Amino acid sequence: MKIKERMDRTPVRQFQTEDFLAVEVPVGVSGRHIHLCREDIDALFGPGYELAVYRELSQPGEFAAREMVTLVGPRGVLEGVRVLGPVRAYTQVEVAMTDGFRLGLKPPVRESGDLEGTPGIAVVGPAGAINLPRGVILAARHIHMETERAQALGLQDDQQVQVWVPGVRELVLCNVIIRTNPHFRLELHLDTDEANAALLSGGDKVKILRP
Amino acid sequence: MKIKERMDRTPVRQFQTEDFLAVEVPVGVSGRHIHLCREDIDALFGPGYELAVYRELSQPGEFAAREMVTLVGPRGVLEGVRVLGPVRAYTQVEVAMTDGFRLGLKPPVRESGDLEGTPGIAVVGPAGAINLPRGVILAARHIHMETERAQALGLQDDQQVQVWVPGVRELVLCNVIIRTNPHFRLELHLDTDEANAALLSGGDKVKILRP
Repeated sequence: MKIKERMDRTPVRQFQTEDFLAVEVPVGVSGRHIHLCREDIDALFGPGYELAVYRELSQPGEFAAREMVTLVGPRGVLEGVRVLGPVRAYTQVEVAMTDGFRLGLKPPVRESGDLEGTPGIAVVGPAGAINLPRGVILAARHIHMETERAQALGLQDDQQVQVWVPGVRELVLCNVIIRTNPHFRLELHLDTDEANAALLSGGDKVKILRP
Repeated sequence: MKIKERMDRTPVRQFQTEDFLAVEVPVGVSGRHIHLCREDIDALFGPGYELAVYRELSQPGEFAAREMVTLVGPRGVLEGVRVLGPVRAYTQVEVAMTDGFRLGLKPPVRESGDLEGTPGIAVVGPAGAINLPRGVILAARHIHMETERAQALGLQDDQQVQVWVPGVRELVLCNVIIRTNPHFRLELHLDTDEANAALLSGGDKVKILRP
């Protein structure tokens, strides 16, 4: 039987409009990338090097830089890994688990900056290589939300919600963290494994289940 | 805040024991692979070639063969793609969406054998290459279940269920198809994107939500 026919035919538990908060959240898919501290930019690209903006990202001030690096893990290599700017206080590598297998690493799910106990990796740029002692993570999925909108929806910074994804690979993502800031733009951030598992692309819309 | 602390602290909608059917389903993760018809084995490995068993798979009679092929898509190449045996009536390539991006293809989610309108690909073996006109899919996730067990649980062949995955990447997979056969062994089949998105490995246990 074809999937579509089956979906039309088989009665499954369906969500109703009243199950959702009154907001549609656009999806942003984060490919593997690296945030760099000043010292590591110097080592990889040269002393005093300034990152160049390649493309503005959805959150104000954040950008994909022109610069790319190579990640070298114990089992494999990933070339052309995008640097995200601006400069950060600490260097952090965000990959998907699929990338982890290619590199030979098992990064844990973490929020930005929570790097204790995470695996390290060699990072190579045009001016040199560094041995990160730690800093490779799977980014914990989260929703950026304007503070005002969160208040209107009855949500708080740091709260966890469940997100419903429609489609042939319909699913519910639990443990999605709400992050509020007056300057944020509404967006659910997923890594490529999560997006591919749900067949989501950037700009697709999902809904938040009423807590 | 650390993820674990947050999970302990934040009250979210929790599932209860009575929400689940009384069965724990082990997970099987399907890496990219190819099933081959007689004619395509002849073209790729030589006339009359017999696949050699590399490893028995969980479902009786199914095996990973020693043989591997190279997939060549419009944008990229995947080497070392495992052939699964035994010989089938039709050739079918099963990849994850992550593989699709590497190959430059957008395969649809399909059940085995439902190949109309699916993309083709070049397949290369040691004795030659073939141009598959179609046959590349993302396999629809499904649970193999013994007929007797399905009856005891009140489930039917072809029915769709929702599956709960515990953990830091807790989620609910909807549209999971039940496939029953007296000879099947209980197992949820996911592709690598789905497994990685949920941080599942082969043998991990998941639960079925009561329909």
